[in-house]
Amino acid sequence: MRGDLTDEIVSITIKENLNQRAISLNQKSHFGKLGDDVLELSIVEAFYLMENGRLNIYECSKSDKKLEPSYVRNIIKENSGYAKYIVYKDLKDRGYIIKTGFKYGSEFRLYERGKSPGEGHSDYLVKIIHENYDINALDFASYVRVSHGVKKSLLIAVVDDEDITYYKVEWTRP
Amino acid sequence: MRGDLTDEIVSITIKENLNQRAISLNQKSHFGKLGDDVLELSIVEAFYLMENGRLNIYECSKSDKKLEPSYVRNIIKENSGYAKYIVYKDLKDRGYIIKTGFKYGSEFRLYERGKSPGEGHSDYLVKIIHENYDINALDFASYVRVSHGVKKSLLIAVVDDEDITYYKVEWTRP
Amino acid sequence: MRGDLTDEIVSITIKENLNQRAISLNQKSHFGKLGDDVLELSIVEAFYLMENGRLNIYECSKSDKKLEPSYVRNIIKENSGYAKYIVYKDLKDRGYIIKTGFKYGSEFRLYERGKSPGEGHSDYLVKIIHENYDINALDFASYVRVSHGVKKSLLIAVVDDEDITYYKVEWTRP
Amino acid sequence: MRGDLTDEIVSITIKENLNQRAISLNQKSHFGKLGDDVLELSIVEAFYLMENGRLNIYECSKSDKKLEPSYVRNIIKENSGYAKYIVYKDLKDRGYIIKTGFKYGSEFRLYERGKSPGEGHSDYLVKIIHENYDINALDFASYVRVSHGVKKSLLIAVVDDEDITYYKVEWTRP
Repeated sequence: MRGDLTDEIVSITIKENLNQRAISLNQKSHFGKLGDDVLELSIVEAFYLMENGRLNIYECSKSDKKLEPSYVRNIIKENSGYAKYIVYKDLKDRGYIIKTGFKYGSEFRLYERGKSPGEGHSDYLVKIIHENYDINALDFASYVRVSHGVKKSLLIAVVDDEDITYYKVEWTRP
Repeated sequence: MRGDLTDEIVSITIKENLNQRAISLNQKSHFGKLGDDVLELSIVEAFYLMENGRLNIYECSKSDKKLEPSYVRNIIKENSGYAKYIVYKDLKDRGYIIKTGFKYGSEFRLYERGKSPGEGHSDYLVKIIHENYDINALDFASYVRVSHGVKKSLLIAVVDDEDITYYKVEWTRP
Repeated sequence: MRGDLTDEIVSITIKENLNQRAISLNQKSHFGKLGDDVLELSIVEAFYLMENGRLNIYECSKSDKKLEPSYVRNIIKENSGYAKYIVYKDLKDRGYIIKTGFKYGSEFRLYERGKSPGEGHSDYLVKIIHENYDINALDFASYVRVSHGVKKSLLIAVVDDEDITYYKVEWTRP
Repeated sequence: MRGDLTDEIVSITIKENLNQRAISLNQKSHFGKLGDDVLELSIVEAFYLMENGRLNIYECSKSDKKLEPSYVRNIIKENSGYAKYIVYKDLKDRGYIIKTGFKYGSEFRLYERGKSPGEGHSDYLVKIIHENYDINALDFASYVRVSHGVKKSLLIAVVDDEDITYYKVEWTRP
C-alpha cells in the first residue's frame, strides 16, 4: 500500500471504495481517520505499519520517491519524540486499540483488546514520562484528575534506554 | 491519662497492670509499643490522643507542667513535619490501623479496618509528598517497586494547604 | 562509525546486516538496544564510545555536521546530569556491563565482568548521590529495600569534584 | 546487687574481691570498667541490668533511696537519648558484647558472640540515625571511612517508633 507524507500526516487515497485494504485498516484495525476518499494516518501509525511491511511511505509530491525507514524515524524523533512511537508500538503489539489522547492532555487513549472505540469509553489515558525528568506534583494531580473525570485509569509510561515501565494511577479516598 | 514527653516519645507509665486504659490503647487500638512497665507512643500518636481529649502530655521532669497543644504541635512541625501528622489523623479518623513504614522507605503502613497488625500483612504503604515538590522519577520508581515487592499497594498522599489527595499507584504490565 | 543524535538517543543505521561493527557493539559489548535496522544507544553510551574514538556523532539531519565532544557533553549535563556519565565511564572502564536501573529506582544495574545480561540476574543496583546533598533517611531505606527485594546489592556512588566513592549497603539482621 | 548513680555512671562497690557477682559481670559478661574496688557501669548498661532484675540503682548519697525504672529511663532520655538504650538492648539481647564507640565517633563498637574484647578487634561500629533526619553525605562518608580505617564494618541503626533497621555499609572499589 502507498501512503503520502505531508506535515506528519500520511494519506492513503481511496478511490470509489476500491482500496479495501485501507478501509479495513480503519474499520477492523482502527487505524487513522477515514474521510470520503482518503484514510489519514498519524506519522506514528504509519511508521508502525511501515515497520511491519504493510505500508510504503512516499514524499508527498508528484515524485515517486519512496522514503527510507530511517528518514521517517527521524521525522518522528524531531517532532512527536521517539518515546511516543516506542510506547505506541509496545501497546499496539499487545493488542490495544490506540487513539490520540490530545483532548485529555495525554499522549494516547487506549481501548481494551476486542473493544472498539465506538462501543464505549476507552479504558486508559496514557501519559509518557522520561526517566530523567522530575514529575511536577501539580501536573501529576492534573493527569489523574482528568482521567478520573472521564472515568478512565491513568497509565504512566516511563521510557528509559531499554524498556518501558507502566504505572497505573487512580485517585482514591482510602 | 498522663504521658511524659522526651525525645519525641511520650511514655505512659504502667504500674503492676493497674493502668488498664493505657494497656487497652495498645491492645485494642494498636497505639504505641508496650514495654514491661510503660506504653511508648510516638509524638504523632500522642498528639492525636491529646487532640481527642484522651491524653495530657507533661514535660519529662518531676514538675507537673502540662504542655499546651500548640507547644506539642510545634515540636512535630520542627521534627517529623506537620504533614505527617495531618495524614496520620486523616487515616486514623477513617478507622485504619497505622504503623511506621520506615523499613519500606515510606511514612506509614496501613492495615484495613478490623484487621490487626498481628493477623497478616499490611495493605498499603503510604508515601507523603508536598504539593510544591517535584517527584523524582527514579524515587517514584523506587517507592512503587518496594510496594510491589512486598505485595502492598502504594498510596501517595499529596498534602496541600487545605486537603490531602490520595493516589493509588501500582506497577503494571498492560 | 556514524551515529545520529535526536532526543538523547544516538541511532546507528544497520542496512542488511552490513554494519557488523554496530551489531557486535550490541552482541559482544552489550551496548544499546538492537532494532531491525538500527542500533540505538543512550547518549551516555554514545559519548563513552565517542571519547574512546569509536564513534562519530552527527546532528540528525541530512547535513553532515559532525558534533564536537564538548557539545555532546553539554547535552548530557543539561539532561541526565554529568555525574551519571562519570559513574558510567568509571564502571565501564572496570569492565562491568551496565544497563539502566530505572525500574528499580536507581541509575544503573550492573553485571559482573564476563557475565552477560541474558545469563542471569544483575549483581548490583547503582544509586548516584552528590556529595553536597543530604540523603533522606526514608529514601535510603527505600533504595536498600528495593535491592534486597530483588536480591541485588546496593552500590551507592558518591560523586565529588575529583572522584567517585562507592559504598556497598546491605539490609542486615545482626 | 546495688549500684550508686552519679553523673550517668553507676558504681558497684567491690570490697576485697568479695563481690564476685560484680567481678563476673565484667570478666564474663564484659559489662563496665573494673577498677580497684569498683565496677563502673554506664547508665545504659546499668538500666539494662535493672530491667533484667539484676541490679538495683540508688541515688548516690547516704540515703537508701532506691530509684524507679521510670526515673532512670528519663535520665537516659534527657542525656544519651533513648534510641541509644533501645539499640543497646536489642544488640545485647542478640548476644553481642558492646563497648563504647566514642573514640571512633560512633555510639558503639561490637564484638561477635563468643569473642571477647581482649582477643582482637571489634567487628562493627554502630552509628545510630533517627528516621526523621536526613543523612548528610559528608557525615556518611566520614562514618564509613573511620570504620574502614580500623578494619571494622559500619552498622547503621535506624530507630523508628517500633523497630530498629540495620544497614551494613562498606567502602568498596567495584
